[in-house]
Amino acid sequence: MATASASVFASLSFEQKLDRLAEVAVRIGLGLKEGQELVLTAPTDALPLVRRITEHAYKAGAKMVTTFFSDDATTLARYQFAPDDSFDYAPTWYYDAIAASFKSGAARMAIAGANPALLKSQDPNKVSRAGVAVSKAYKPAMELITRHEINWTIVAAATPKWAELVFPGEPEDVAVAKLWDAIFHASRITSDDPVAQWREHGENLKRRVDFLNAKRFHSLRFHSDDGKTDLTVGLADNHLWAGGGTTAGNGIYCQPNIPTEECFTTPHKDRVNGFVTASKPLSHQGTLIENIQCDFVNGKIVKATATAGEEALNKLIATDEGARKLGEVALVPHASPIAESGILFWNTLFDENAASHIALGQAYSTCLIGGEKMSDEELAKLGANESLIHVDWMIGGPTMNVDGVSEDGHAEPLMRGGNWCD
Amino acid sequence: MATASASVFASLSFEQKLDRLAEVAVRIGLGLKEGQELVLTAPTDALPLVRRITEHAYKAGAKMVTTFFSDDATTLARYQFAPDDSFDYAPTWYYDAIAASFKSGAARMAIAGANPALLKSQDPNKVSRAGVAVSKAYKPAMELITRHEINWTIVAAATPKWAELVFPGEPEDVAVAKLWDAIFHASRITSDDPVAQWREHGENLKRRVDFLNAKRFHSLRFHSDDGKTDLTVGLADNHLWAGGGTTAGNGIYCQPNIPTEECFTTPHKDRVNGFVTASKPLSHQGTLIENIQCDFVNGKIVKATATAGEEALNKLIATDEGARKLGEVALVPHASPIAESGILFWNTLFDENAASHIALGQAYSTCLIGGEKMSDEELAKLGANESLIHVDWMIGGPTMNVDGVSEDGHAEPLMRGGNWCD
Ligand SMILES: [Zn+2]
Ligand SMILES: [Zn+2]
Ligand SMILES: [Zn+2]
Ligand SMILES: [Zn+2]
Repeated sequence: MATASASVFASLSFEQKLDRLAEVAVRIGLGLKEGQELVLTAPTDALPLVRRITEHAYKAGAKMVTTFFSDDATTLARYQFAPDDSFDYAPTWYYDAIAASFKSGAARMAIAGANPALLKSQDPNKVSRAGVAVSKAYKPAMELITRHEINWTIVAAATPKWAELVFPGEPEDVAVAKLWDAIFHASRITSDDPVAQWREHGENLKRRVDFLNAKRFHSLRFHSDDGKTDLTVGLADNHLWAGGGTTAGNGIYCQPNIPTEECFTTPHKDRVNGFVTASKPLSHQGTLIENIQCDFVNGKIVKATATAGEEALNKLIATDEGARKLGEVALVPHASPIAESGILFWNTLFDENAASHIALGQAYSTCLIGGEKMSDEELAKLGANESLIHVDWMIGGPTMNVDGVSEDGHAEPLMRGGNWCD
Repeated sequence: MATASASVFASLSFEQKLDRLAEVAVRIGLGLKEGQELVLTAPTDALPLVRRITEHAYKAGAKMVTTFFSDDATTLARYQFAPDDSFDYAPTWYYDAIAASFKSGAARMAIAGANPALLKSQDPNKVSRAGVAVSKAYKPAMELITRHEINWTIVAAATPKWAELVFPGEPEDVAVAKLWDAIFHASRITSDDPVAQWREHGENLKRRVDFLNAKRFHSLRFHSDDGKTDLTVGLADNHLWAGGGTTAGNGIYCQPNIPTEECFTTPHKDRVNGFVTASKPLSHQGTLIENIQCDFVNGKIVKATATAGEEALNKLIATDEGARKLGEVALVPHASPIAESGILFWNTLFDENAASHIALGQAYSTCLIGGEKMSDEELAKLGANESLIHVDWMIGGPTMNVDGVSEDGHAEPLMRGGNWCD
């Protein structure tokens, strides 16, 4: 059956495949409601997908679709030519407008696809300052996203520079075609009925989430066969595991990431101890950070190294008090289709769904029982971290073992060799 | 000399020509100040020019360049698929942000280039309603533009659909290349020193403006040899002629239109009488309006016809009380380079600089002595019109004669056969 379905998908034209991704993004990713407004962000290279998404949004009854494009070439021009004080500035009037749109009922979709290595030759100091300025200006809008007050989703579009990094040495058109193919497959749109395919996938994730929630683990212990990681991640009091779809504060059921393979929850910001080695490189704000190693003591990173991008890493964790603590821990089996593809995407949306991971910075308040209604103080008291940043990085892989540890210290094997034990 | 200069320009690569247009737009059009922010609007097809402009803006010291792209295909998708009540909606949160950017010191540049006939097959009722919704939402930002409180400019980029309309029957690449060439020439960037070229042009316009201001005419009478127009346009009390560059309220000298060939002022909203026939078709919000004929009585259009787009025209003048009255009158000699090219651009930025014209709707308060500091009531008392719209249409051409009429009724010939008498 799966083979037959896959071959029907394979027989579609590229335009038809793109159209299906757009439809899944609007109907399943956003669950866009009739009369709702949509605010879309996208790289200029993603224009063909933007057009398909816009059409499906209007067909689904969108009142208005507004797209804000980012452009790698103009971003780079800023680093090359703008005066120095530009890098401490972000247009608050713009980010405030985004927040205002969310407050007035808009849904939000982001298309990922920027060049993951765009800024690798730029001054890390400027990159970091610009990132901090945006994080501050974006905070009011970002809070509505991390609190899931609105329905939102992220999908990806293959773009030339990104494809070149993922499939080095291939001619541009071949690399882009291969990346699109990888995106279509990872996004689970290849069966004859992607809605049913997503429902089934969501039920599988939900079963796993329910199991983890029933366990009420006190902490997780990540220990790898290669001895490069032995990290105990305490979980927040009243933590809640999540995965797959979520019902946003506005009542709309959405899938915030396409693809999504993770079960994730909120760690306790002061109860992380041990050492950890990243299993995949990380692209953060156009800089590649490779072979991250960190030591944690009582929740805090006390030492961080990387074989590439170390300066960017250290600037990142110096953003604010919460930037050197964890805001998310997530379990992803090595048997997930993205991991099985063996492709390193250099893009968090995909790589975090190919491996168990942790995130520095802001926690999701929805990953605490009743968290969406709590004040920042109440959240912090339970152990939820607060920061301007939220940066996922991958620690899982075929050598990773994970135990669930109960309050009394009893360790139950959850994952062995990167996969679920059951 | 002019020939030698032109041939140097002709020897430049397309990229170099584009780069020069961008530099002129930033340095002469905007007069962008060091540390100033730039808000740019552009069609997606204008991305190469956007990139050149962004680079020159940062080189000139811009703190931040933010570009908002419009896309003809997604605009069309809205008309084809959006629910009906979409057309009474405009995202106020977006237009408010634009106004906020202006208030916080941003300069504004618009790149013209959308398909002039994009919406010609769409329901004129929807087109009109959408236009009214945008005009209302955009009003706070638009006022800062019409009052010249900030430095702003408009330039153009050749795009395939526009080029197809201007050069029908040509292959797309040929049509686009021809349109770019026409834009480069009309924009006066073809000499070795475009800055000097623009200074000289500005001084010529200034001489004409000073002459007209010294005359203190009571009205202008447009009467064509072909008998199709005999229109008396009363001028506002304390009217001020303008042309070429202007010093904005923020103290920055800018050229609001590239190209610009017009001397323009504020007519008296209640003192326009006679009949007038458009000399060129008009593209308004993606609809083509051809062979406009209007009868005016005491400032008001009492009858309006067109051989194409008549419904759009009548909806336009029904926008509000001021939409059927004049807010601008402008004199452009038929000897201007744009008129001499013989090209019908179907774009107001060019066509209004090829022929004397009038504009329905909002008056420029800067075209009244001390007007930029006056209240709406004070402006109205002097005869300045107020409306959500400002739509220029062309009435001049080789058969047009214009007299300046003094308070006592003495008529002085200003233009004969479309050109200045002196
Ligand atoms: Zn995650
Ligand atoms: Zn995350
Ligand atoms: Zn004009
Ligand atoms: Zn005008």
